Amino acid sequence: MSAESTPNLMEAVVSLAKRRGFVFQSSEIYGGLNGFFDYGPLGVELKKNIRDCWWNDMVRRRDDIVGIETSIIMHPKVWQASGHVDGFTDPLVDCKVSKQRYRADQLFFAAVTVDGEVKGYVSALESEDTVGALQAAAESFKRKKAIQGTLAPVVAVEFTEATEAQIPLIPSPATGEPGSLTPPRAFNMMFETHVGPLRDSASVAYLRPETAQGMFVDFKNVVDTGRVKLPFGIAQTGKSFRNEITPRNFVFRSREFEQMEMEFFIHEDDDWAKWHRHWIDWCKDWLLSIGLPASHLSEYDHLKEKLAFYSKGTTDIMFKFPFGVQELWGIAARGNYDLGQHEKASGVPQAIFDETTKKKFIPHVIEPAVGLDRIFLAVLCGAYAEEQVTDEKGKAETRTVLRLSPRIAPVKVAVLPLLKNKEALTERAKELYKKLQRRYAVFYDEAGAIGRRYRRQDEIGTPWCVTIDFDTIEKDGTFTLRERDSMEQRRVTEAELLALLDEQVY
Amino acid sequence: MSAESTPNLMEAVVSLAKRRGFVFQSSEIYGGLNGFFDYGPLGVELKKNIRDCWWNDMVRRRDDIVGIETSIIMHPKVWQASGHVDGFTDPLVDCKVSKQRYRADQLFFAAVTVDGEVKGYVSALESEDTVGALQAAAESFKRKKAIQGTLAPVVAVEFTEATEAQIPLIPSPATGEPGSLTPPRAFNMMFETHVGPLRDSASVAYLRPETAQGMFVDFKNVVDTGRVKLPFGIAQTGKSFRNEITPRNFVFRSREFEQMEMEFFIHEDDDWAKWHRHWIDWCKDWLLSIGLPASHLSEYDHLKEKLAFYSKGTTDIMFKFPFGVQELWGIAARGNYDLGQHEKASGVPQAIFDETTKKKFIPHVIEPAVGLDRIFLAVLCGAYAEEQVTDEKGKAETRTVLRLSPRIAPVKVAVLPLLKNKEALTERAKELYKKLQRRYAVFYDEAGAIGRRYRRQDEIGTPWCVTIDFDTIEKDGTFTLRERDSMEQRRVTEAELLALLDEQVY
Repeated sequence: MSAESTPNLMEAVVSLAKRRGFVFQSSEIYGGLNGFFDYGPLGVELKKNIRDCWWNDMVRRRDDIVGIETSIIMHPKVWQASGHVDGFTDPLVDCKVSKQRYRADQLFFAAVTVDGEVKGYVSALESEDTVGALQAAAESFKRKKAIQGTLAPVVAVEFTEATEAQIPLIPSPATGEPGSLTPPRAFNMMFETHVGPLRDSASVAYLRPETAQGMFVDFKNVVDTGRVKLPFGIAQTGKSFRNEITPRNFVFRSREFEQMEMEFFIHEDDDWAKWHRHWIDWCKDWLLSIGLPASHLSEYDHLKEKLAFYSKGTTDIMFKFPFGVQELWGIAARGNYDLGQHEKASGVPQAIFDETTKKKFIPHVIEPAVGLDRIFLAVLCGAYAEEQVTDEKGKAETRTVLRLSPRIAPVKVAVLPLLKNKEALTERAKELYKKLQRRYAVFYDEAGAIGRRYRRQDEIGTPWCVTIDFDTIEKDGTFTLRERDSMEQRRVTEAELLALLDEQVY
Repeated sequence: MSAESTPNLMEAVVSLAKRRGFVFQSSEIYGGLNGFFDYGPLGVELKKNIRDCWWNDMVRRRDDIVGIETSIIMHPKVWQASGHVDGFTDPLVDCKVSKQRYRADQLFFAAVTVDGEVKGYVSALESEDTVGALQAAAESFKRKKAIQGTLAPVVAVEFTEATEAQIPLIPSPATGEPGSLTPPRAFNMMFETHVGPLRDSASVAYLRPETAQGMFVDFKNVVDTGRVKLPFGIAQTGKSFRNEITPRNFVFRSREFEQMEMEFFIHEDDDWAKWHRHWIDWCKDWLLSIGLPASHLSEYDHLKEKLAFYSKGTTDIMFKFPFGVQELWGIAARGNYDLGQHEKASGVPQAIFDETTKKKFIPHVIEPAVGLDRIFLAVLCGAYAEEQVTDEKGKAETRTVLRLSPRIAPVKVAVLPLLKNKEALTERAKELYKKLQRRYAVFYDEAGAIGRRYRRQDEIGTPWCVTIDFDTIEKDGTFTLRERDSMEQRRVTEAELLALLDEQVY
């Protein structure tokens, strides 16, 4: 049974994440806080490994990209210049009776049309089958009101498009009754706070809703202090915050999350489409390098007419999550809009000098932006599998296995003495364990039957188990290397193990 | 000339940090934001290396400590239970005329006593020589008012201890005139925000002022999902926020900063003093392992009578900064106060079961807590030196050198072809560079005289430079390894270089 055929994959992943300490609800003993999550002992290692792989591949192993780390709270003028103060909003609908709040673009309604006449309205929250839900609601509406005639197939309409006349007639999803929904209003998603002892408009500041502006605001500092020349990139990872109206799908859409963004600056005359394609390909290759299944990845080009006026094009790399195909990594060609905005707002010139043409210009930018928590979730969903296997005694059992790439697995090797009560075995095992621990995250386990110990490692995605047995200490020093996915076992020397790790974990 | 004898060391360090892209003021193009900093290309690498060393030594290389990562915004009840909502305050004094704000515990005053009679008051902000400043102010006061007689030596008093009668008589440091300072009031240093679309008291949340509470709130989750047993620790690194009234001393006291904290849980009957000592020693050893000079470290035991009622003892590891000896790492024995508070407030039992005594109890805790930005600053201050050396042509010059440990240096090796225009040299240099880059942060530089290239690396703390010359390509393949601190040069093979890195960078 592969990941794709696991029924309720999402439930299985969330359950494993909780059971084995990958992800906890934030402040769980206080009932949790909607849209906030904590990473447990295994989760923090997996997350750190993904982050470090990205950093190494994006920054340290390249000559044309440098890293920075900017503050979460920046000068409020940054967010005025970037357009976030005015425009970073979601359409919000209140239900005055239930006090529930909905995103208007996630709330759908449909007219109940019988024999060509509108008899009323039904509503449903966006789901895998919004139209089906609306159709069922319409049928129920017709039945309950004992309306005779032929019901037309429903047409789903986003609540943002409801007319003034329709709004009072659309039922609230909370109460099922019309009359309580308000017209949509723009709700700014930036968290607001105050810096300094005074709480007035002059002290308002925001938690950054994206890390990208840090790269733009520090652009000149990087140019002036580093030895960079076009084309070059500035990258950072770090927390961002969005006061989502309806956080959902586990860590997919949360209110506090971590981004990994890079701004790649190119000459104004350079071929932006070529660079755009380059970075889409780079991002896809990188996702494959950390083990995401190619079968789950696809591309989505944003419609030209839906792009911001300054945007030349945006392509999303999509991932097939259990709850649908969703955006994972956005690669946007943003022209020179951001640097231009900051030049205007700050009065500090952002142009750089072209030695060839002797002209000054503001560089254009390609921006690959991805959420670390989303990759984390994609990794778990892509790696999770339940398999029917046969245990040592020939009994059929289900094994849960996380097929994580060795690059990002929280534990690289589990070192297992065959028996707990034979000191010669445990001593040698501990010696190997300590040696490996200097370079790698390793785990020592001597408790229980060897088969059960393998299963425990399978479930957390440990690529290799090494078993120290009597042959190890009495014969040639080799030990059993057991591979997670194939479950194959072979004898290896310590040198062979070290070479394997050196090649696979990087 | 060593670091200690560099006049204006702080200025020199801040200037280097800006010039070479270690630290920028946040939002500098908008005039900056007081108390917020960005880390530039070299700074982010140095900071990441310190963080990773701590994580590897504190978590990955140990069997008794696990890591977690909790959210910055937690349930507000966490901060009620921890005491931060009521007690995390600084005493704030306003100057009603200048609108300046001061921390009352950083503002000092003294009576001007002439021939045994109080003639008035003077004030001064805390500095290296507060008493001297007050004495000078008193003399100036006496002179300006043409008071005859003998001035008694001043006695500095904290503004927090000013009586109601004294306050109107104490001059504001901003105006020099009395009458404008308010009595101190408690100012809560937590940044406040609102979660969700409503802005009312029910939606208030705080940016965490410390990471420690995350470990306490998730304690039961870790116990229930990990295979931990006492004594064991939970560690995390992450951003914290404090709305400081007077941020100062560069990144030493900022409003947004990163902490590295660990909570080490022990049996209630265990010897807390032994563990307390153990962790003080561990922390000092660790600071030495990343290269802080032992001569700059000292210990300070908090006075018993100044401890919180639940505290058994707190010892700070102090560092000699250019602006004075200041707290670097606090190691606190906190009893079982925090878990006990969360048990009371949440109603969720935090006790664990002792198999031996068959009794339940709430574990006690030792907490080593350190600020990453402070270590970063201590590292720079401890490593900075200006030396008189002689260049190739026999001319005396000053070299600036950062004596960073190879463990944390942003660049480990610079690879330099002797000449830029000899393809055989640059090809071999690039080949080595690419090979090293898979594992290490390395830098390739072919621009300028070799001596100048060495100096550029000295200034950013690169421990080794490797020069590819004609002997490398025509004779034995060895290259020149130049050591930063001694400036000694010797021939090494590639294998010797790799072994050196493997030993020194970990």
